[in-house]
Amino acid sequence: MKTRLDQFDASKGFSRGRSGLVVAVWYLLKCAFLLSALPWPSGLKVALLRAFGAKIGNGVVIKPRVNVHFPWKLEVGDHAWIGEEVFILNFEPVKIGAQACISQRGFLCTGNHDYRDPQFSYRNAPITVGDGAWIGASVFVGPGVEVGDEAVLAAGSVVTRNVPVNAVVAGNPASERGVRWRGAV
Amino acid sequence: MKTRLDQFDASKGFSRGRSGLVVAVWYLLKCAFLLSALPWPSGLKVALLRAFGAKIGNGVVIKPRVNVHFPWKLEVGDHAWIGEEVFILNFEPVKIGAQACISQRGFLCTGNHDYRDPQFSYRNAPITVGDGAWIGASVFVGPGVEVGDEAVLAAGSVVTRNVPVNAVVAGNPASERGVRWRGAV
Amino acid sequence: MKTRLDQFDASKGFSRGRSGLVVAVWYLLKCAFLLSALPWPSGLKVALLRAFGAKIGNGVVIKPRVNVHFPWKLEVGDHAWIGEEVFILNFEPVKIGAQACISQRGFLCTGNHDYRDPQFSYRNAPITVGDGAWIGASVFVGPGVEVGDEAVLAAGSVVTRNVPVNAVVAGNPASERGVRWRGAV
Repeated sequence: MKTRLDQFDASKGFSRGRSGLVVAVWYLLKCAFLLSALPWPSGLKVALLRAFGAKIGNGVVIKPRVNVHFPWKLEVGDHAWIGEEVFILNFEPVKIGAQACISQRGFLCTGNHDYRDPQFSYRNAPITVGDGAWIGASVFVGPGVEVGDEAVLAAGSVVTRNVPVNAVVAGNPASERGVRWRGAV
Repeated sequence: MKTRLDQFDASKGFSRGRSGLVVAVWYLLKCAFLLSALPWPSGLKVALLRAFGAKIGNGVVIKPRVNVHFPWKLEVGDHAWIGEEVFILNFEPVKIGAQACISQRGFLCTGNHDYRDPQFSYRNAPITVGDGAWIGASVFVGPGVEVGDEAVLAAGSVVTRNVPVNAVVAGNPASERGVRWRGAV
Repeated sequence: MKTRLDQFDASKGFSRGRSGLVVAVWYLLKCAFLLSALPWPSGLKVALLRAFGAKIGNGVVIKPRVNVHFPWKLEVGDHAWIGEEVFILNFEPVKIGAQACISQRGFLCTGNHDYRDPQFSYRNAPITVGDGAWIGASVFVGPGVEVGDEAVLAAGSVVTRNVPVNAVVAGNPASERGVRWRGAV
């Protein structure tokens, strides 16, 4: 056997960015107010995320059952929407632009491993979603991906490469299918 | 920036169909009895859905952790099955035929937006699942799709176009892979 | 109509393997300790699974919100990891090798139906994940699949055929994209 998960070192190439106590307190509050199906107001969720270091703009809408791993590694622009069952696994920073929409069951996954390293070391990388972009329902966005401003990722896409500004992509693996706005964006 | 989610008008091309109070009461009951992992009997869930306007046949099976957005926009035929973690996002009507099966983690998504409208207006559309059809596990069915009677959508398919009667489809985007029943259906 | 779910016979080609009482008690404990978002220690979850017949090795990590249908049909090798929201629908046995990783939202689905039988009889089949294999995030693995040792299933893959030892697969339907380790495994 080559893979040795028992030798995995979580501190290699990764920092939680907060103490274990802060992580634990956040986790419990997340369970109560974000992961919960109860319809807590977006304002309360935004206030909680900000209290733990998230940079969140005005008018942001956060639906129930949303999973945010580390608020202190999250940035969300004005008037963005985050839909039901969205999973933001932000071991590394996730930046969601203003007026961007992340639809239901979307998954922004910054986590990765070097699978050619027997110790399976982290190869996490940040994700950026541009202003006005739309991450459709059930879309998976992988580590390191930059989604350009105003891009559209069609429902069910699996996106592991950068998406150009104004592009419309679909499929698994996702490929370009057209442009969104005619003329300059 | 072109996209202006802050100017989105949820009343344009969309009606909840019930008062805010009814929506809120339904939401809380949904949390307690449908989204919950607790194994409430199907009969109780069917009774609740009917009390809120759903048309549901006899012998319908509804597993735990099912999400129904608006019961008054749901119709389910006799002896249909709805599996664990199925998400029925029925901004517009969803009709599931008799003897149809929606497997685990399936997503019937009537929600959509006109992404070439800066105000991102709704472009929702109903979904019909024909009698005897099988929506496999982890399948995504998009807005406006009509799934023909006795069709089979293989696990993990992403289906955004109509599926003919008796067809077997698979993939993302889904394409036809064969027929189900030999001879007339 | 051909399909007759009302004539489905769950006992044909399928045995739960335990009494209804054991299944019910397991279900409630599962809700409290596995499906729950609360961060119960892996050791507690492993102990519970073992108490219900699972064969689980040392150093296994089980994250929150994991769904295990029947513990008595589960085998997990030493130092394997099971991530958040993993769904192990093991109507038939699921065997996860040592040092294997099942990432977030993965779905190991042994359930199936003969969709050319009007009574939709079970066609369930076991799943084997080899030692050191990596089932990426949001991957669907279908019934009967054998994932070879050290194989990598890229995030979002839909895998319904066997995966050779050391292969890297991706896509929907998944296809081979390369090898993991150069030289002998």
